[in-house]
Amino acid sequence: MSLTSQSLHGILPAIPTPVHPDDTINVEATRALLGYLLAQGTDGVLPLGGTGEYGALSREQRVRMVEVTAREAAGRVPVIAGVLDPGYHDAIKAAKDFAAAGADGLLVLTPYYTNPTQAGIRDYFMRYADESPVPILLYEIPYRTRIAITPEVIHELSQHERIIGMKACNTDMWHFLRVVAGVDESFAVLSGEDTLFPLHIAAGARGGIVVTASLLPSAWRRIYELASAGKTQEALALHRTLIPLMNLAFAETNPGPMKSVMDLIGVHAPDVLAPLVRADATLANNLRAELKKQLAVFEGRE
Amino acid sequence: MSLTSQSLHGILPAIPTPVHPDDTINVEATRALLGYLLAQGTDGVLPLGGTGEYGALSREQRVRMVEVTAREAAGRVPVIAGVLDPGYHDAIKAAKDFAAAGADGLLVLTPYYTNPTQAGIRDYFMRYADESPVPILLYEIPYRTRIAITPEVIHELSQHERIIGMKACNTDMWHFLRVVAGVDESFAVLSGEDTLFPLHIAAGARGGIVVTASLLPSAWRRIYELASAGKTQEALALHRTLIPLMNLAFAETNPGPMKSVMDLIGVHAPDVLAPLVRADATLANNLRAELKKQLAVFEGRE
Amino acid sequence: MSLTSQSLHGILPAIPTPVHPDDTINVEATRALLGYLLAQGTDGVLPLGGTGEYGALSREQRVRMVEVTAREAAGRVPVIAGVLDPGYHDAIKAAKDFAAAGADGLLVLTPYYTNPTQAGIRDYFMRYADESPVPILLYEIPYRTRIAITPEVIHELSQHERIIGMKACNTDMWHFLRVVAGVDESFAVLSGEDTLFPLHIAAGARGGIVVTASLLPSAWRRIYELASAGKTQEALALHRTLIPLMNLAFAETNPGPMKSVMDLIGVHAPDVLAPLVRADATLANNLRAELKKQLAVFEGRE
Amino acid sequence: MSLTSQSLHGILPAIPTPVHPDDTINVEATRALLGYLLAQGTDGVLPLGGTGEYGALSREQRVRMVEVTAREAAGRVPVIAGVLDPGYHDAIKAAKDFAAAGADGLLVLTPYYTNPTQAGIRDYFMRYADESPVPILLYEIPYRTRIAITPEVIHELSQHERIIGMKACNTDMWHFLRVVAGVDESFAVLSGEDTLFPLHIAAGARGGIVVTASLLPSAWRRIYELASAGKTQEALALHRTLIPLMNLAFAETNPGPMKSVMDLIGVHAPDVLAPLVRADATLANNLRAELKKQLAVFEGRE
Repeated sequence: MSLTSQSLHGILPAIPTPVHPDDTINVEATRALLGYLLAQGTDGVLPLGGTGEYGALSREQRVRMVEVTAREAAGRVPVIAGVLDPGYHDAIKAAKDFAAAGADGLLVLTPYYTNPTQAGIRDYFMRYADESPVPILLYEIPYRTRIAITPEVIHELSQHERIIGMKACNTDMWHFLRVVAGVDESFAVLSGEDTLFPLHIAAGARGGIVVTASLLPSAWRRIYELASAGKTQEALALHRTLIPLMNLAFAETNPGPMKSVMDLIGVHAPDVLAPLVRADATLANNLRAELKKQLAVFEGRE
Repeated sequence: MSLTSQSLHGILPAIPTPVHPDDTINVEATRALLGYLLAQGTDGVLPLGGTGEYGALSREQRVRMVEVTAREAAGRVPVIAGVLDPGYHDAIKAAKDFAAAGADGLLVLTPYYTNPTQAGIRDYFMRYADESPVPILLYEIPYRTRIAITPEVIHELSQHERIIGMKACNTDMWHFLRVVAGVDESFAVLSGEDTLFPLHIAAGARGGIVVTASLLPSAWRRIYELASAGKTQEALALHRTLIPLMNLAFAETNPGPMKSVMDLIGVHAPDVLAPLVRADATLANNLRAELKKQLAVFEGRE
Repeated sequence: MSLTSQSLHGILPAIPTPVHPDDTINVEATRALLGYLLAQGTDGVLPLGGTGEYGALSREQRVRMVEVTAREAAGRVPVIAGVLDPGYHDAIKAAKDFAAAGADGLLVLTPYYTNPTQAGIRDYFMRYADESPVPILLYEIPYRTRIAITPEVIHELSQHERIIGMKACNTDMWHFLRVVAGVDESFAVLSGEDTLFPLHIAAGARGGIVVTASLLPSAWRRIYELASAGKTQEALALHRTLIPLMNLAFAETNPGPMKSVMDLIGVHAPDVLAPLVRADATLANNLRAELKKQLAVFEGRE
Repeated sequence: MSLTSQSLHGILPAIPTPVHPDDTINVEATRALLGYLLAQGTDGVLPLGGTGEYGALSREQRVRMVEVTAREAAGRVPVIAGVLDPGYHDAIKAAKDFAAAGADGLLVLTPYYTNPTQAGIRDYFMRYADESPVPILLYEIPYRTRIAITPEVIHELSQHERIIGMKACNTDMWHFLRVVAGVDESFAVLSGEDTLFPLHIAAGARGGIVVTASLLPSAWRRIYELASAGKTQEALALHRTLIPLMNLAFAETNPGPMKSVMDLIGVHAPDVLAPLVRADATLANNLRAELKKQLAVFEGRE
């Protein structure tokens, strides 16, 4: 499909990458995950973000993950693939490979490891958008990259025809308010934080790329519906019931805890990739109990 | 050559990557740089570190840079190539490619972007060392990766036969003192900070992978000789004369300023790679004046 | 008046301390400021917070400021005085002095400079609340004190009869959501950030101790009314019109910029206290122009 | 005595404040501590630093601590009292009180809690030095105050006749090297970090205000003698034997662990002041065992 900013709304789960012990894609488990999400209802899927352990996969397996995801999505919902390479040439190579493998759009990370200026960041994304075969979203997550993009630069980038939105993971809500105050109409700001999602929607986000929506798509859909209808209080009240689950899911580096419980939704692939290690056993058990409870409440699964 | 920890001593410049405007290796300028360093005297060279704009190069050009460097070094000094990929499979692929292209050893960065545990970091390097075709050095630089390796984990890793040293860029000297207090005899700690070099040597480093040694190899050799002979005060006095130059060289993200003045040592390749931008003109002029002064003092160049 | 958590709602400006050049309270200017706020409508006043340059005043002048404020408020609105001493004995001495001078309640800062544990913080506030002659609010502002209070400790403290609320300046909204999810009914969470105020109200704050409400009380009252009526979008839209003013007011350390323009509301006391310095002249001029515009819109002042 | 920068050298222990359970000075224990230090040999004493729990004491008890210390020192060694108030008027009041109580000099902290500019910091110290009845030392400790003083401002302040030195706690050694490169001859830079002391001396410090010297004055004297004689390697070798003790002493907020073991040197006052809490029992036991070992080695105490 030809992705536009109008397609960017609702809940797009940032999905984990199910793998075999030899670090290759577990196709069966990936299909089970996508089947679950499509059956429960989803507005898109985001493979190969941080949740997807991008950095830890081989370049071949990343392409494989996009292929499998795109084949399952089968044009019903957009597939937006993460591109988390630190620098330009690796990142634009990924753009071409992922587009060829079926990605409708790309979520492109701020260059990192180095220390760019704002002008350098702007030039980087402009060049990338010009050269990418598919539209892109900006990925701003300074608590991982050490670099924030100023609202002014985001405003400027939002006017580029092929930069159609962003995943906002900057936890500074004042930054968020200034971003949304000046972006182009054609640019869709999406929440990138499970923990802040209803507030992001209240403040102008059109949807969210969230992690635990892979586990509880109906719960997140309901939160989104309330929040986007202006029922912020009700959305927050529902979101509040997920606080224990979020506390557990993010108590160790994501997706470690989540991968330890995905069998509850029919996804049998608990392995994580280096340098992650399996979730602590007690944490995994507590998350399992909490997830069971929430699956019964929201997804009709006992 | 077969690299051992005994080979790791003295001054090994972390060299910039001379490029053409199309982001490919400028072979002529690279040869000029290596010719300068070998003529003035050097104990090794380190292409493709942060100074070498690793992330910004294509995978092909990285291999090309190792080839060119190894051909020029011609076995006279060790070539240790940086591996700055965020995750395992990209990083080990680079190991194989760089070894095939002539690298004698590799400087392997802590996995980053994600948030590993210390156990995850240990496992990562153990696996890497087992699989790498050539010996490796640890690269610890928490101000870039957000992750420090504890002294205890470094001590454990130092006992691995194929982990022969480290580049220490952690600016916490108390961390450094605890590291050197417990590493294996077969493990060479090298300073990774121009600004702290004489103190690192006084505290147990056997040499340094430093940046401005690409400009002033004789100056750095002299500092090293004094420091390693226990003449810490004299080493610091000489180092002090380089404070203005270091202040300027690091006033913007390295290697931007340095690349703007390398024509003074016969290296004509001022371009930087995205997301870096050319050094500010005033900064470049000030650095040029300071470098001219120091070249006259130390390298016999007027 | 006997302050209870029920009294804590709406807009309570964190007021600057008008001073003479010899660092003593400018009583006339203070009276003018309070007169302006009471005439335009306010739900309380907060002297001697960070905005009030607590640390820079002598102990005698702090008491004087409470006296002057309490006399002007004359029981019409609560006077809550900041207590920003780093440690217990100075802080509890201030409690007694300020209560005697007319403070209805106190805003008590987390102990700082040192590095307390959560248990130490809990014990500190419990002891303080037991000994204070008037009820207290917690003041949590980790970007100044380097110490956050965990939601769990805030929940426990919220059950103390004499700890009736808090000023929330932790910019981590996920922390805020977890705080409000578990505090006692008798505990009033107040926003402490101009920049986040409508979101704080949407998420459960009952009001705010905000800085620029000293300049634009009617604007902030209107934002509060909208937000507390569940009209989050409208509140945010109005708040958005204040973004330029907030950007300017906080471009240098508060209250420097604000003090440079308070003559526009009839408060003639531009001096700041050491170590602050007068606002940059261009910044002051830009803030003056912006404030004039907003005074015309909101306060009926041309 | 009239304190000059020439008096600032060697080891000046930053002493803890022995207190009774009611937060008043334990005079007997304080006398025991000073007796121990004077008997073993010391070049000065520093009461009321961070180690002395300045913030947690009442203003009266701070003055009392200076009185007791000055009486015991009896002019044999300089008494330099910490002044850790966040702002000017409290801080200068302390200067007058402490000088009257017998302090020979003052260690004055950068203003904190607020966010000063470098110009504001410079003006603050200039004014303070002009008004203080006794000479002052700068206290720079950005990991507590969030504010570093630039080398350039320290250079300027070092020329003030009554600013005779500094306690350097900035762990950035590059900052330290730039500081010592430009201070006036009449200005004594003292190390403020046990963990970095030999390197600070090698780099130009004339002595140190260190914490564990209260426990092991002879050990620290020996390290100082070696380091100041240019025997950096030997100083570091000796310092290395104290790594386990320093790891334990600083594993919780100082002086909690240290106070739990001071009975071994005849100081019976284990209480800490709010918000600190007693050291963890296991930590205290481990520190006790380590201290016993080192007392036997260095202080002739079995």
